Amino acid sequence: MSQYKIVVDALGSDKGPEAIILGVSLALKEFKDLSITLVGPEDLINEKIKELEIDVARLKVINATETITNYENPYDGVMHKSNASLVLAMKEVGRLEENYTGMITAGSSGAILMGSFRFLSDEKKTRPCMAAILPNALGAYTTLVDTGATIDCTSSQLHSFARLGSDLMKKMYKIESPRVSLLSNGAEPTKGNHLVKETFPILQEDKTINFIGNVEGNRALSGDTDVIVCDGFAGNQVLKNTEGMAKMLITDIVKLSKVKNRPEFMEVAQYLMKQYDLGALGGGIVLGTRKVIMKARGNSDERAIVNISKMLINYASGEAVFTKKEREEALR
Amino acid sequence: MSQYKIVVDALGSDKGPEAIILGVSLALKEFKDLSITLVGPEDLINEKIKELEIDVARLKVINATETITNYENPYDGVMHKSNASLVLAMKEVGRLEENYTGMITAGSSGAILMGSFRFLSDEKKTRPCMAAILPNALGAYTTLVDTGATIDCTSSQLHSFARLGSDLMKKMYKIESPRVSLLSNGAEPTKGNHLVKETFPILQEDKTINFIGNVEGNRALSGDTDVIVCDGFAGNQVLKNTEGMAKMLITDIVKLSKVKNRPEFMEVAQYLMKQYDLGALGGGIVLGTRKVIMKARGNSDERAIVNISKMLINYASGEAVFTKKEREEALR
Repeated sequence: MSQYKIVVDALGSDKGPEAIILGVSLALKEFKDLSITLVGPEDLINEKIKELEIDVARLKVINATETITNYENPYDGVMHKSNASLVLAMKEVGRLEENYTGMITAGSSGAILMGSFRFLSDEKKTRPCMAAILPNALGAYTTLVDTGATIDCTSSQLHSFARLGSDLMKKMYKIESPRVSLLSNGAEPTKGNHLVKETFPILQEDKTINFIGNVEGNRALSGDTDVIVCDGFAGNQVLKNTEGMAKMLITDIVKLSKVKNRPEFMEVAQYLMKQYDLGALGGGIVLGTRKVIMKARGNSDERAIVNISKMLINYASGEAVFTKKEREEALR
Repeated sequence: MSQYKIVVDALGSDKGPEAIILGVSLALKEFKDLSITLVGPEDLINEKIKELEIDVARLKVINATETITNYENPYDGVMHKSNASLVLAMKEVGRLEENYTGMITAGSSGAILMGSFRFLSDEKKTRPCMAAILPNALGAYTTLVDTGATIDCTSSQLHSFARLGSDLMKKMYKIESPRVSLLSNGAEPTKGNHLVKETFPILQEDKTINFIGNVEGNRALSGDTDVIVCDGFAGNQVLKNTEGMAKMLITDIVKLSKVKNRPEFMEVAQYLMKQYDLGALGGGIVLGTRKVIMKARGNSDERAIVNISKMLINYASGEAVFTKKEREEALR
């Protein structure tokens, strides 16, 4: 019997279920102590099992052909589409007797959040939020929470994000006392919008977290902080801007290499692509749930599934999810 | 007599008045049709005039030793420190008989905005805002407004920012019908926080601007849009994150060059440094005023003063402030 069990939602990726199924086949080959429950179109999966030589002893298939799209109301989708792959996957991962570590889905963020709240909320009925783990300038990782699950927030929600983000960094990265900061337009305690100003004293008074004050956007990924707390609107800007800038600079280098006919510059581009391959790190982690729900990005390919499977195995085995050393090795 | 006249505030830079005075001396040497009114400590300026061989025929000095710091309430500063360099500079640039093009200051953003409103507001008494001009992926420029002057905004303020930003791109970059978009957490019209959702139909109805819908953070600098409208909190995140990411990737390349002993990689770092030298483009432009007020960044050096002087001259002469061709030449 496999030591680690996860559920994978085969639908939801822009690249189609084929990319996810391929990812599952690679993950099963790479991690011998992993078994996967794949929720998706059975016919296609069965066809691919032969083609990709998947070890069926470690694969369980649950048939699902329906999806909840980005254009649907997430609440309606989760409540009424009881056969959607996301809904079936969440029900499966929540089954106590199966003892799953967690699940991976590239589905719509809104539906993931709504489903997490409905099927997988913790005993405190915490409202789930979505965190991203981003590479920082010190070669370690910084968690950004929320990244777009709750767009308009209250200060008590930000307080909850701070605690959940701190817990995540303790559990996933073995940081004893994660440094928590509040995203603002200046480092001074007087800086911020109404929400930030209201939240600041609440975080300061909470002795269960290590609140270090406000952080500005240009220091967000400096490594000065382990957890950045913000509403989903601001978090979405940071996440997408980080991605957009990395892509823009890398594209510039590729162009420079061509225009100046200097092929060696492509080595720089490739190095940065690895360093800032946000896709490979997974799209996000749902916090405040009984099981670890990892969101793969909408444009996820097979590599994303392999990498996120690795994160879930590390998490279940009590290891840091992605260590500094591991990252350095990946970059060699 | 000089064709172009500008006012420069000598105080406010983290690098001290020496850096600003040096910048003024270089700008006067480079642009023969420029004359400058420098507001700052007279003794120091007189000393530097000899040392830097400044052409005194094109320099007027107004003595000021007081400043409004970042730690002061901007309103109190502007109302009560009538001898502060910023206040004197604003009063000077507003004098009709002098016919100045505009001014440059590295002073506190809050005080600049408050002073602009008090001394230089236009006939409509528009509330001024702060725009930044950022390089985009197509080698052109995109204006981001507001970048931190008004942190909590109303939809009518965002509407005003949209019009002012559009006017700026028409005047400064000779774009006939600038594409205006609203920063959001998704491209769909249904995405956004309360403020964005409220502002969307207002911009859509205004036929004096070319509103093209929402833009996500990762497409902000793609070149798809000429003007990005957002509240000062979100704009500050985009501005500072853009800067932070450029710095982080460039630092990575410098490290890679050293670790791998590949000095040629430094050429890539230098190329990107030029391309993303946000400092050299100026810290921001105040919109909604009778005169062009350019904010140099707090850490501005002499080059910033020269570059911003150039922008003001181009503006006054009816040229695009910084053309694509000019940018390409600067990068050679």
